[in-house]
Amino acid sequence: MTHPATPQFTLDDLAERLGAHLVGDGSRWIRGLATLKDAGPDQVAFVANRSYLKDLASSRAGAVLLHPEHAAACPGARLELPNPYLGYAHLSQLFDPILARREGGVHPSAVVAEDVALGARVEIGANAVIEAGVELGDDVRVGAGSFIGAGSRLGAGSLLHPNVTVCHGVTIGERAILHSGCVIGGDGFGFAHDGSRWHKIAQLGGVVMGDDVEVGSCSSIDRGALDDTVIGNDVKIDSQVQIAHNVRIGDHTALAGCVGIAGSTRVGRNCMLGGGVGLSGHLTICDGVQVTGMSLVTNSIHEPGVYSSGTGAMPNAQWRKNAVRFKQLDELARRLTRLEKRSQEG
Amino acid sequence: MTHPATPQFTLDDLAERLGAHLVGDGSRWIRGLATLKDAGPDQVAFVANRSYLKDLASSRAGAVLLHPEHAAACPGARLELPNPYLGYAHLSQLFDPILARREGGVHPSAVVAEDVALGARVEIGANAVIEAGVELGDDVRVGAGSFIGAGSRLGAGSLLHPNVTVCHGVTIGERAILHSGCVIGGDGFGFAHDGSRWHKIAQLGGVVMGDDVEVGSCSSIDRGALDDTVIGNDVKIDSQVQIAHNVRIGDHTALAGCVGIAGSTRVGRNCMLGGGVGLSGHLTICDGVQVTGMSLVTNSIHEPGVYSSGTGAMPNAQWRKNAVRFKQLDELARRLTRLEKRSQEG
Amino acid sequence: MTHPATPQFTLDDLAERLGAHLVGDGSRWIRGLATLKDAGPDQVAFVANRSYLKDLASSRAGAVLLHPEHAAACPGARLELPNPYLGYAHLSQLFDPILARREGGVHPSAVVAEDVALGARVEIGANAVIEAGVELGDDVRVGAGSFIGAGSRLGAGSLLHPNVTVCHGVTIGERAILHSGCVIGGDGFGFAHDGSRWHKIAQLGGVVMGDDVEVGSCSSIDRGALDDTVIGNDVKIDSQVQIAHNVRIGDHTALAGCVGIAGSTRVGRNCMLGGGVGLSGHLTICDGVQVTGMSLVTNSIHEPGVYSSGTGAMPNAQWRKNAVRFKQLDELARRLTRLEKRSQEG
Repeated sequence: MTHPATPQFTLDDLAERLGAHLVGDGSRWIRGLATLKDAGPDQVAFVANRSYLKDLASSRAGAVLLHPEHAAACPGARLELPNPYLGYAHLSQLFDPILARREGGVHPSAVVAEDVALGARVEIGANAVIEAGVELGDDVRVGAGSFIGAGSRLGAGSLLHPNVTVCHGVTIGERAILHSGCVIGGDGFGFAHDGSRWHKIAQLGGVVMGDDVEVGSCSSIDRGALDDTVIGNDVKIDSQVQIAHNVRIGDHTALAGCVGIAGSTRVGRNCMLGGGVGLSGHLTICDGVQVTGMSLVTNSIHEPGVYSSGTGAMPNAQWRKNAVRFKQLDELARRLTRLEKRSQEG
Repeated sequence: MTHPATPQFTLDDLAERLGAHLVGDGSRWIRGLATLKDAGPDQVAFVANRSYLKDLASSRAGAVLLHPEHAAACPGARLELPNPYLGYAHLSQLFDPILARREGGVHPSAVVAEDVALGARVEIGANAVIEAGVELGDDVRVGAGSFIGAGSRLGAGSLLHPNVTVCHGVTIGERAILHSGCVIGGDGFGFAHDGSRWHKIAQLGGVVMGDDVEVGSCSSIDRGALDDTVIGNDVKIDSQVQIAHNVRIGDHTALAGCVGIAGSTRVGRNCMLGGGVGLSGHLTICDGVQVTGMSLVTNSIHEPGVYSSGTGAMPNAQWRKNAVRFKQLDELARRLTRLEKRSQEG
Repeated sequence: MTHPATPQFTLDDLAERLGAHLVGDGSRWIRGLATLKDAGPDQVAFVANRSYLKDLASSRAGAVLLHPEHAAACPGARLELPNPYLGYAHLSQLFDPILARREGGVHPSAVVAEDVALGARVEIGANAVIEAGVELGDDVRVGAGSFIGAGSRLGAGSLLHPNVTVCHGVTIGERAILHSGCVIGGDGFGFAHDGSRWHKIAQLGGVVMGDDVEVGSCSSIDRGALDDTVIGNDVKIDSQVQIAHNVRIGDHTALAGCVGIAGSTRVGRNCMLGGGVGLSGHLTICDGVQVTGMSLVTNSIHEPGVYSSGTGAMPNAQWRKNAVRFKQLDELARRLTRLEKRSQEG
């Protein structure tokens, strides 16, 4: 729980780690990343698209990460890479104080059941609670105040930020990143009605997550009713997302903030759901589907492509008039049809 | 905090607990539930509707829960019940390792104020915090890391999963189930504006919840401004739901994930709100109303029935054309009317 | 962690604190606030608008807070103020047991790094965790189970309710109120795609919040990618709100429950976003904009005013017909245009 030191690297070291071609003084120390405008001599900036080229001349950056074809526009030191945005991603990870931090060991205030299986170099933060039968792979880090329920397993290199809840019987792959406030494996929403009241259907399935999954702050992934809820490999889930029981999400799919997916829906691989998108239950969304923000999907989608619903905001006075007409839309269409008939007859 | 043992029962025992008519070997041990397709000889499956009858012949299930009228289609052991889905609900509860688990006692790391009133067999998990004046009924279980604020009361048999927050002055009935990350009794959103800035209106009401209420992961129920926020009996609330101050929800109503209800709105009994539904403030929704997913309700509803708004997703290119037209809708309607007049005159 | 005592004041004392003109017995003890209908002789009620004047005659309130022009309608004791609703806000704060409570000191179960800088009268609750380099101003109160990450700073008078998470490198101004379950400074949602999979863009910016900010239960404010996410002064954020990386929110703006704001969008000063509103990324919303509930904003807004989208709920049968027509809207418009041409030609 020490204050994380700011990582620093020489340009030579960075070039080697990125596999980049360095032009400039390799002994310069770099202590961070910044935009072209803000970067100082101990920071690296990057040019991910052409529109920023105009800022190159005036940048004070210690080096600039860019595509070789933009090298001529860069008066100072540069790191040339075919995909500078990807290079920026790799570089950013080196400078993250939390990703880089290694505290080591189990904090004395943590409550860890006797039979928990701890891999090498596992860290468990203050006041965390780990129940019986849990297995934590090598280099797993569990943040302060986090909870891992009985029998759950976390793959090597996984990182739980503080105040994360992983319920019992959950299996998480390697290199997961779970952000504060998220809950993995709470009960799905299942009840039988007897004609007058509800009876709980206990949720006996678990949650199974592949490798390289990230889950944002305050998101919830519910456990399955009988079978598991399944999250594929390299699935990226933003904050405030709700994934209901028995949903299955394919590899490499990304869900933006506030997405809600109802029970038993299957989302394919390489999909992208925009912020606030809602999927009804029991749908199948094929691979390669993108849905724009706040759209409602009530039917399965069988063709890759971009899908949308809703209408954008407009001044309230204009909106009121149009929204009223929406309620008359079927009638308007029928009136139009009648008029067309009359016109053809006339 | 032991690893929960898998519960097991003989078929005779299950038949008696369900009040079902058993046909088959009553001494067989059953260790779980599964679908007809997946169930093995030590698991029970169920047929809740006719469409699954075709799977009966090939099922390896140790017994099948079904309606007596489907008995002939079942070659193996069976548990006959008039409402097999309800039977499944009851059966599932028997096999839930968390519902069945009894640890007993107050974990030494929990911080419990001296004057807390503990019923019989109360369990308090590791690192939980219980403030002064709290009353916990018999068999209440408080999960690890959960917090219960001063003067709050939990009825007998209530279960708080790990990392739940119940603020001060909250009253919860019997057999509540609160999932991880939910917050009961945070401040409602109230401010007075002085012409230039906001002044907080302290939220002096509480939250009062009836019996048999369930609240999902990461949901929030805000405390009232002066009076209480009131949740009736047998109300079921899914994950990521927001209930604002002074809302009142009638008995047996169910709210799916991501529902948001604004301040002072009253929802009747036996209502069902689909995922992502939003209700404006100060509305009255009568008993027996269903609202489909992601609908926006801005007016009170006085007749039972199903209500909807919004439009479903379509291919983006098609949607763009239609969404643009929505902004012209009032104008289109006026043009249609003019044309009709001209046609009648002509 | 004592049971908070109910605060009490004489009417004389309240009049002085509010700067109100008291008519009545100043020695009467007041122990709370209530509505005109419910208030008893030891409670104050208020009349914020004319529609409640009719309840004045029958009210048993110990005193009524009202505008001087309504004095004649009040038969009992009264506190006269030009803005009674503002007076109610100030009064309510006096009677909030949590705002008024002072426990003092650091609970022995809290885990506080050695170099944390604690102001005067700082309170740290049971099982809270404070990492290295944190600075807490005078009178800061940190609720039970809350976490404050390395190097973060909280201004004087800030109140963290139980189970709040403030990640590392976050700066929060004075008098903040953070409700349970909220997460400040979780990673923003940033990834680079290499053609087959995602690579994390570490989020190296922080969150900077001004003075007098309130954040509701289970809300999340993500840290910036390179620069900070910035929340202005006197910004009020309700429950279940998601604010993505590098968003900037101007002073005095209020966001109702379930609002979602995508990355890098700038919201002006004195704006109000209704419940469930969604803003796309990289927009600019000018000062003084109001957006009604559940609207989707996909374009920047440059004029103050009220904006809306969506359509309200209607009976499902009616809705189905209209929603189908929405998918034909562009076609209907084209048919109308053709008919108009024919009519003009004819």
